[in-house]
Amino acid sequence: MISGRTKLVAHIGHPTESFKAPLVYNPWFEHVGADAVVVPMGVKAGDLAAILRPLFRMSNILGALITMPHKVEVVGLLDEVTTAVKVAGSCNAVRLEPDGRLTGDMFDGEGFVRGVLRKGRRLAGARALVVGSGGVGSAIAAALAGAGVATLALADARPASAEALAARLSAHHPGLEVVTGSTDPDGFDIVVNATPLGMTSGDPLPLDVERIAPSALVGEVVMKEVHTPFLRAALARGCEVQVGTDMLFEMIPAYLEFFDLPVATPDRLRALARLEPA
Amino acid sequence: MISGRTKLVAHIGHPTESFKAPLVYNPWFEHVGADAVVVPMGVKAGDLAAILRPLFRMSNILGALITMPHKVEVVGLLDEVTTAVKVAGSCNAVRLEPDGRLTGDMFDGEGFVRGVLRKGRRLAGARALVVGSGGVGSAIAAALAGAGVATLALADARPASAEALAARLSAHHPGLEVVTGSTDPDGFDIVVNATPLGMTSGDPLPLDVERIAPSALVGEVVMKEVHTPFLRAALARGCEVQVGTDMLFEMIPAYLEFFDLPVATPDRLRALARLEPA
Repeated sequence: MISGRTKLVAHIGHPTESFKAPLVYNPWFEHVGADAVVVPMGVKAGDLAAILRPLFRMSNILGALITMPHKVEVVGLLDEVTTAVKVAGSCNAVRLEPDGRLTGDMFDGEGFVRGVLRKGRRLAGARALVVGSGGVGSAIAAALAGAGVATLALADARPASAEALAARLSAHHPGLEVVTGSTDPDGFDIVVNATPLGMTSGDPLPLDVERIAPSALVGEVVMKEVHTPFLRAALARGCEVQVGTDMLFEMIPAYLEFFDLPVATPDRLRALARLEPA
Repeated sequence: MISGRTKLVAHIGHPTESFKAPLVYNPWFEHVGADAVVVPMGVKAGDLAAILRPLFRMSNILGALITMPHKVEVVGLLDEVTTAVKVAGSCNAVRLEPDGRLTGDMFDGEGFVRGVLRKGRRLAGARALVVGSGGVGSAIAAALAGAGVATLALADARPASAEALAARLSAHHPGLEVVTGSTDPDGFDIVVNATPLGMTSGDPLPLDVERIAPSALVGEVVMKEVHTPFLRAALARGCEVQVGTDMLFEMIPAYLEFFDLPVATPDRLRALARLEPA
């Protein structure tokens, strides 16, 4: 029940029709008695700069979830951002500090990493391959580097994109070995599809699954179906997999911690969520 | 349940803690299945001009309820306002038109007028006395004039305030007889306290109740208790009365019509409202 004492979490993006966050966070707030609400705000491309600061001057705002098309632009509008934001080049969480500064963090990759750790995998010292160096691939690479992997291999259909990400990774994680240019998964502990391949029926697989070690963990960002053709091939090979929505539900506790709201496990959030059928 | 398809009604004012509108509108929207939500937005004095237009560029905003301290300032930020706004000098409702213009209306006085009409009183041709020419008194006078009263008498502890209101009334309602300077209720059909007298225990009565005709309807804006000392004295004299919250609940259907949302009767809204004890 929204009252004048309720704290707002603005969910900023456009279009809003497909937003899932209100359907996940608000049932949790209601369940746990947290007087907060996620409010979708349909801010169009080009309109973010005009509204962000005025919005954060409101007396009852707690923070913002940032989504398409603003994740990159918002970085330049903040006072301080984390290393994850600097490496990913994008930001999906903004918080108002007590002194009025706006700080940003990025939890897309954090969700991926938390899911891997929850499955009992070790990331410190591991070798990871991330295919796709766009927004989500950059975020996952940033989080894997933050989690202490020893080697990070990057590949993208646009080689310049992978090279730029590699340069940001090297700048912020000097001890990390970064290699680019190959999608060969041979020898990697963690193998991730961060391309859109799998969204459309008939897409080729993003990499040669036959060369993945059966001991590797195979992750996916596409959420079109629980097990994409890529994950089905990995399962057939005997690999453990991480499905697309794992990243989503693992990300939410990270957001809740960032906003200093009561934290739930991903399973609890999944059970309470009122997501409509796709 | 808020989703990405929910239309927002921004409730703009500061401080938000005492806002009642979310506790009245949202249960109604839920009950009737309207996919809309009133969201308190704590916009501080001086911050309105920066946020109003960016807010109305959002794709999912439907309108705004405007309250303290912005009811006067907002008038100058709109593209078009009603006669009620021009006479009252303030605005409490803003709507986005299909062509992008922002239009404003004022329903404080409309709530008062609707309550009087619902009690079976006739306003066309009536004689009304409004004591207090501040924000709410001006709004009531504007609405009474709009409803066709023949004579409107105004009085205020600051005579210049009553004179300024009289000038605005005369400019927009050329056929209306406007008199100022006396609180004597003798000969009036409608007698209204629009001063804050009655908010504090020990306040004097706003006018000489002994001179009110028992056939008159006596209205009150103070909501501190259902029957203020002024209303108790009027009841003792045999007058019919209109209590402060009547104006509040009568105003809401006017807002709902303005926003093209499903309309309820004031009694229905009262029954559904989840107002906490004062």
